[in-house]
Formats: sequence, C-alpha cells, structure tokens
Amino acid sequence: MSNYENVTLDPTANVYFDGGCVSHTFYTAEGVRKSAGVIFPNTFNFGTAAPEVMELNGGSCRVRLAGSEDWNTYSAGESFSVPGDSSFDIEVTETLSYVCHYG
Amino acid sequence: MSNYENVTLDPTANVYFDGGCVSHTFYTAEGVRKSAGVIFPNTFNFGTAAPEVMELNGGSCRVRLAGSEDWNTYSAGESFSVPGDSSFDIEVTETLSYVCHYG
Repeated sequence: MSNYENVTLDPTANVYFDGGCVSHTFYTAEGVRKSAGVIFPNTFNFGTAAPEVMELNGGSCRVRLAGSEDWNTYSAGESFSVPGDSSFDIEVTETLSYVCHYG
Repeated sequence: MSNYENVTLDPTANVYFDGGCVSHTFYTAEGVRKSAGVIFPNTFNFGTAAPEVMELNGGSCRVRLAGSEDWNTYSAGESFSVPGDSSFDIEVTETLSYVCHYG
C-alpha cells in the first residue's frame, strides 16, 4: 500500500482489546482524520461513532454488521463500510493490516 | 507527546514478536526515518542495524545492552541509546509507547 504523504502523525498508539488491535491516528494535509493499524487473529466487537470505511491492505476476516445475520468475508485489497453509532463483529482469520477512513 | 507534522507515513505496521511490538514507520519532511510504536509487557531481545535512540512517552522498562551486566530502568519522559549492529534485552513492566530515532 502506498505511503501517505504530508500528514500529521500522533505518535502515541491506540491500543484496544489488550493489544488485539493497535493503530496510529493521523491527519491528512486537509485535516481529515484516519488511522492505520493491525488487528490480530481473534473475534472482536467494535463500536463506531463516525461511519467508517475499513480499507484492508493485508490479511483476511469475516464481518457481521449490527442487526445483520450475515457474515461477509473480506481480504487484502477489499474494503467494508460500517454505519456510525453502530457496531460490528469481526473474526480475524489472518492478521489484518488496515487504514480506517472516518466520516 | 506532541504530533509529528508534515511526515510521510507507511500505513503498513511493523509487527514483531507475534504482536509483542507494533510500530509504524514514518519519515520527516527532511527524509529522516523514525518509527512510533508500542511494546507490551514481556521480555524481548531486539537487534539493531543503525544506532537507535528510544524515546519513551509512556510506560516503563528495564534495559540491558549487549555486553553489559547492568539493567537500567527507564520510563515515560526518558530515552535510552543503543549502538548500531548490536542488541539489547528489554523487560517491559508497563506497556511502552515510544518513538525510535535512527542513525
């Protein structure tokens, strides 16, 4: 995945689920917040505030959005979208490398 | 710790020791490589290529440089230096948040 240029990086990592997910927040030159991170193999439930687009550049997972019965599989090169003020279940089957786009 | 502005960020995380250490590489506007990461509580041996200065902005650890008998304790607000082409033992007692400066 190509580098992000001219960004502002918060050097303090975000750690979730006892290290099951680690990310760094950054801001584009236009001030748009994003985060780059990894999620290790396990099953998690993530909540959202803003809507999110999870862009996967490595790994594989199954995702079930809140209110849905269906699990969908996503892997490197694919993305999935999650509504704001919602949540999703994710089963990571191969360590995920991702960029999360908000808003 | 204050943000790094105008950097180029590699969004693909570096994962070491099965997730015991996760970092992101970035480059300053001058092209100087650095990395921002976390190291979770455990004991590790890290090798160095370039000399490193580990700037701690959170957590606590004990460090023993290669060839030394002495363990030194470092915590948030402190730094320690490691020669190039060397190694160090680190016992992380509280999750470390760091920026690594090379060269």
